[in-house]
Amino acid sequence: MTPQAPTPAYRRLSVEERRAQLLDAALSLFAHRAPEEVSLDDVAEAAGVSRPLVYRYFPGGKQQLYEAALRSAAEELRHCFDEPREGPLLPRLARALDRYLAFVDQHDAGFTALLQGGSVVETSRTTAIVDGVRRAAAEHILSHLRVEDPGPRLRMTVRMWITAVEAASLIWLDEDKQPPAEELRDWLVEQFVAVLGVTAGRDAQTAAVLAALPPADG
Amino acid sequence: MTPQAPTPAYRRLSVEERRAQLLDAALSLFAHRAPEEVSLDDVAEAAGVSRPLVYRYFPGGKQQLYEAALRSAAEELRHCFDEPREGPLLPRLARALDRYLAFVDQHDAGFTALLQGGSVVETSRTTAIVDGVRRAAAEHILSHLRVEDPGPRLRMTVRMWITAVEAASLIWLDEDKQPPAEELRDWLVEQFVAVLGVTAGRDAQTAAVLAALPPADG
Repeated sequence: MTPQAPTPAYRRLSVEERRAQLLDAALSLFAHRAPEEVSLDDVAEAAGVSRPLVYRYFPGGKQQLYEAALRSAAEELRHCFDEPREGPLLPRLARALDRYLAFVDQHDAGFTALLQGGSVVETSRTTAIVDGVRRAAAEHILSHLRVEDPGPRLRMTVRMWITAVEAASLIWLDEDKQPPAEELRDWLVEQFVAVLGVTAGRDAQTAAVLAALPPADG
Repeated sequence: MTPQAPTPAYRRLSVEERRAQLLDAALSLFAHRAPEEVSLDDVAEAAGVSRPLVYRYFPGGKQQLYEAALRSAAEELRHCFDEPREGPLLPRLARALDRYLAFVDQHDAGFTALLQGGSVVETSRTTAIVDGVRRAAAEHILSHLRVEDPGPRLRMTVRMWITAVEAASLIWLDEDKQPPAEELRDWLVEQFVAVLGVTAGRDAQTAAVLAALPPADG
C-alpha cells in the first residue's frame, strides 16, 4: 500500500488475462487447502498483486472467486471428456480417464473439498456446477456408445459408474494415489464393461450396445 | 398462545417421547420438502404442539433440529444393515438392500436433499454423519465377507459399490421409483458380484472372497 510497493505487471495483462491469472492462483491454493482456509490475501499474495485488485475483479469476495474458480475447473474437466468418436471404444474411455485422473491429481485437496460437501463455500450454485459436469460426462459416454434415446436402465448404469469413478478418485487421493493411475484407469474401464454386462441381462438396449462393441474392445 | 389453546398431550409424554415425536414430525416434513422450506412453525404444527415447546427441546432452532433428525435417520439407516451372519451371503445383501430401499422410499425428498448437498443446513457435521453411515455400511459388508484385514483394492471396490447404490437411490427417487424396488435390489446385488469379479482379476484377496461364496450365491 506504500507508493514504492512493486506493481510489476499491473498494466501488462488484459482484463481477461488478469482474471485468468487470479483464478489460476486461487485454484492452486484450493488444491492444497480447504476453501475455508484460503483468504483473499493469500490469493493476492500467490498472484503477486494487491488485495484491492483481487476485489476489483471479484467484488463479491471469496465466495465469488471460489465460484469462478470452480466454473473454470469445471470447464477444464469437461475438456477431459473431449475425445474423437473414432477407433475402438474402450481405449477412448481409457484416454478420457487418463485426463480425468490427471485433473484429480493436479487439483487434489480442492477436488476433495468440493465433492465431499459441507464446505462453507458450498451452495446450491456450486452443487449445480458439479452436477452439470456429471451430466456432461454421462452425455459424452452415451454419445460414444451411439445411443440416441437411452432408456432408464442404461442411463442409470452410466450414471452409477460415473459416481463410482468419483468415489474411486476421492479414495485414491485419500490413499496417497494408490494404486498407480494407470492401474486405476484400467480397473475402472473393466468395471464399466462389467456393469454394462449386468444391465445387458435385464435390458435389450444395453445388450445391443455391448454386442456392438468392436472386437478390440472385447 | 391464548389460555384456551388446546394442549392435548403436553404432560402425557416423557421428555424422550416428546423429543422422538418432534423428530418424527420433522423427518416427515423433511421427507416432502427441502430443509430450507421447513420452518419450526411447520414442525410445531405437524406435531400438534406450540412453537415455544419446539424451541424448549431444540434451543438451537432449525439447525439443531435438522441435525438431530439427521442423527435419528442415520441411526435408523444403520439398522437396515443389521443382518445375521448366517446362510448364503447374497440373500443377506438382498435383505439389507430391501430395508435400505424402504428407508429411501420413506424419506424421499429428505434423502435427496441430504445427499445432493448444497443445502443451507448442510455443514461439516451433517456431512460427517452421512459419511459415518457410509463407513458403517462398508464395515458391515466386509465383516459379512469375513475379511479380517481388507486390502485397498477390496475396500475400494466395496466403497465404490456403496456410492453407486447411493447414486442409484437418488436416480430412482428422481424417476418415480422405477424400476420397482425388487428389480433394483436384484440388479444392485448382481453389480456387486460383477465388480468383485473384476477386482478378483487384480487382487488375490478379492479372488479368495469370491471363491469362498457358498454355491447358493453363485
